[in-house]
Amino acid sequence: MSLSNLLTLSGQVNDLLNASSVLSWDARTMMPKGGSETRSKQLATLTVAARDLLCSDQMKRALEGAEKDVAGLDDTAPEARMVAQVREAIAYHERIPAELLRRKTELGGIGHDKWAEAREKADFSLFAPALKDIVDVSREMAEAIGYEDHPYDALMYRFEPGTTTAELKTLFARLREGMLPLVQQIAQKEQPRSDFLYREYPVEGQMAFALKMAAKLGYDLDRGRLDTTVHPFEISFTRNDVRITTRVNPKYMPMSLFGALHETGHALYEQGADPAYVRTPLATDLVGLYAVSGVSFGAHESQSRLWENHVGRSRAFWQNHFADIQAAYPETLADVTSEEFYRAVNRSRPSLIRVESDELTYDFHIMLRVELESRMIEGSLSVDDLPEAWNAGMKSYLGVDVPDDAQGVLQDVHWSSGQIGTFCNYTIGNIMAAQLFERAMQEQPAIGTALEGADYAPLRDWLTDKVTRHGRRYGRDELLVNATGRTLDPEPYLRHLTSKFSEIYGLAV
Amino acid sequence: MSLSNLLTLSGQVNDLLNASSVLSWDARTMMPKGGSETRSKQLATLTVAARDLLCSDQMKRALEGAEKDVAGLDDTAPEARMVAQVREAIAYHERIPAELLRRKTELGGIGHDKWAEAREKADFSLFAPALKDIVDVSREMAEAIGYEDHPYDALMYRFEPGTTTAELKTLFARLREGMLPLVQQIAQKEQPRSDFLYREYPVEGQMAFALKMAAKLGYDLDRGRLDTTVHPFEISFTRNDVRITTRVNPKYMPMSLFGALHETGHALYEQGADPAYVRTPLATDLVGLYAVSGVSFGAHESQSRLWENHVGRSRAFWQNHFADIQAAYPETLADVTSEEFYRAVNRSRPSLIRVESDELTYDFHIMLRVELESRMIEGSLSVDDLPEAWNAGMKSYLGVDVPDDAQGVLQDVHWSSGQIGTFCNYTIGNIMAAQLFERAMQEQPAIGTALEGADYAPLRDWLTDKVTRHGRRYGRDELLVNATGRTLDPEPYLRHLTSKFSEIYGLAV
Repeated sequence: MSLSNLLTLSGQVNDLLNASSVLSWDARTMMPKGGSETRSKQLATLTVAARDLLCSDQMKRALEGAEKDVAGLDDTAPEARMVAQVREAIAYHERIPAELLRRKTELGGIGHDKWAEAREKADFSLFAPALKDIVDVSREMAEAIGYEDHPYDALMYRFEPGTTTAELKTLFARLREGMLPLVQQIAQKEQPRSDFLYREYPVEGQMAFALKMAAKLGYDLDRGRLDTTVHPFEISFTRNDVRITTRVNPKYMPMSLFGALHETGHALYEQGADPAYVRTPLATDLVGLYAVSGVSFGAHESQSRLWENHVGRSRAFWQNHFADIQAAYPETLADVTSEEFYRAVNRSRPSLIRVESDELTYDFHIMLRVELESRMIEGSLSVDDLPEAWNAGMKSYLGVDVPDDAQGVLQDVHWSSGQIGTFCNYTIGNIMAAQLFERAMQEQPAIGTALEGADYAPLRDWLTDKVTRHGRRYGRDELLVNATGRTLDPEPYLRHLTSKFSEIYGLAV
Repeated sequence: MSLSNLLTLSGQVNDLLNASSVLSWDARTMMPKGGSETRSKQLATLTVAARDLLCSDQMKRALEGAEKDVAGLDDTAPEARMVAQVREAIAYHERIPAELLRRKTELGGIGHDKWAEAREKADFSLFAPALKDIVDVSREMAEAIGYEDHPYDALMYRFEPGTTTAELKTLFARLREGMLPLVQQIAQKEQPRSDFLYREYPVEGQMAFALKMAAKLGYDLDRGRLDTTVHPFEISFTRNDVRITTRVNPKYMPMSLFGALHETGHALYEQGADPAYVRTPLATDLVGLYAVSGVSFGAHESQSRLWENHVGRSRAFWQNHFADIQAAYPETLADVTSEEFYRAVNRSRPSLIRVESDELTYDFHIMLRVELESRMIEGSLSVDDLPEAWNAGMKSYLGVDVPDDAQGVLQDVHWSSGQIGTFCNYTIGNIMAAQLFERAMQEQPAIGTALEGADYAPLRDWLTDKVTRHGRRYGRDELLVNATGRTLDPEPYLRHLTSKFSEIYGLAV
């Protein structure tokens, strides 16, 4: 009875957060420009209303009763986990003083404008004062939230609960050890042909192909839709309405497709959640105040990277689907083979910009950001010294010279809005993707056979069973142990990269 | 200080209601079909959250303080009106027991499904039980809300505050007296040529023309957008984001244009509200829990009907713009003159369906509905006798025989969702439109000259000054007296109809 009260109230929190997501989607896809100022106020009110309801006296009374209701249950029972997540989220939010939260929100608004101006003028000094305030307030947040070892751990909690700075240090060292030799060897090799990727690809054909492939992977269009935006994203309003976007460049074909496949992976996570969890805490990030079924940002990224890279950038995929894209652009692709296409979309070379980087060099961009963030938060790197540290890092990791701040330290939007602690998700996602994919192939060889035949259902079913249907019931590592027998493990990822790039570039490993 | 507290809280109510409007717009334009069930829950939560915040203890404390702040002000000062509207809305909502509200909401959900089935099968008896419950609960609502003279007055309050059943009776009698002779005479006359309206009009050209005309009348696309839907509508999320839709029939050209002009009129009301009133009670219907600047549904309809009929169906409009539509469809319209087009879009003849009826016969559909609704609410007409009363009314007012319930008593969606008391708005809108338009032309003859030259700014400026900028500051009749020196007055409307249709059909009047 009290559990049902708790679920009624947490369902309302979920409704408010989903409403907020609808308003965000609309703002990024449909809203006329005049609407932005009042839209920000509407979004702020929805988040505050959700937080206030979560931390309200009636919620606490319902929680007290629900704790008794689930006292006899196994700790991993869905009901027990729902109750535990409400309890933990209330505790989390109550540790953050309202005044501090207000200050952080305000700084985020200011920071974005300063960052945009600084980036446009490629002048970090214009953003530095705002970033100093953001770092200061983030350090205060870390102290309020609390941590055992490193203040940066407290900031990562909202995105990747349980991950520590120490753990990332070890993980990143192992990745560098495995990946640097590949990057260095590839630098000595000839690049595959890729001229044909930059020909004329009219937008309609690209979008039709992207939508067709998304549906083919299993994206349910009765519960979704695809639009175009400047930056691709996935967002959901319960599992019943999960939307994706991609971007289209009429002179560079892969962008629209891989954007769509990446977001399709995210969408399959949300669409694949257990229908019984709809509107419950197992479909709501009550700590992050975001209506999502994925259990961490890294876990979410594992699904997008798995479908984008392990499926979409595989040789089998292009053996099966190159004919489709060739049929859409017969003259443009008359002189290209599926094998050439496969190699072209897997070229690897160090580059300046994270979002344009390839599967092998991507994680170096992440390692650099995580290092710099954690040093700023611990106080061993000042904001003024940040550009120099950035440029030195790019040189040391990727051998790249950064020509200006716009193409360097100012390239990402994250810090400008006060978002610190989320970059690790990308690399954790890459690692998890490989770990899950390798396990699926070992456990059910039929999955691999099906992929060779362009049948994506067996892989999707395996992922639904092991990952997506559980929503937020299991923590990320719990989920990984259940699925693969191990917590986060970089070895399958290194095996994947080594085998793939050795073969493409003819490396000696 | 307390006024500012009140405005902070009422601003949040406005945000929640605007969020609800975004979710409604999305549900009607963009949402995949799978999203409907959870979307309903999200909408319900937003409305309840807005109502709860409005009636909360903190709002009442803020109200108490604000009452003192505005005690010295003139009763019509914006701040005094803001405070008064919060006070009245709280009183209104507190008169309605939560249990009754819940029952009404539930019945609305059930009623819609029953109605849809009944309409599909053209069998009123399938809807009758649900409608009986809806009428019963509406009568209970009327008793809870309270009234002086007639229970139907209590139901109209939410849509058209202050309007009474007695007042409508007098008004409708005068309208019939003036309009019936026109309808009867036209029945004896030859109809103008209209064959060319039903030719092939590809959709793109229609939408481009509709959008061009909307912008020409003054619809600001930086704060708006036009989409297509099954039923045209306008909805706003503050004056900064006001969206319209229209419907397109590739074989009947006027539908898309007049839909767009009608909704443009609504949009100009919202876009024209005083920027200082954004998020305040003067831009929020706190009684109806709807974020809107228009002061009543009738006042809103006055703007849509004014731009649709007095401008869009005027001879000057077609003298100016027929060339545009002819340029879009040169072969289709090669054998047509602007005068023929003007006459064709003004044909009048009795018909079965309200939403397809013409300017002259439209109000008879409304009078019938208001009569039947008010009789059901007062208890002098039973639901079982409704179809017979409907058919008799159609025969007596318009000489039309109703072939089945789908084309008769089941044609409108309103009752199915429990919406009773709103039909009068359409006729009040028609009356107000004529009253305002006549006054504008008398007061500033330059407005008429400008219209002859396709310059819509002077008329729009006059309406902004007299109507739209005030938002909800003045009541409907107060607004009318300020603008025209009179409360609601049917004579300008009758003069307009008489003069227009006499001229088109060559009637002796």
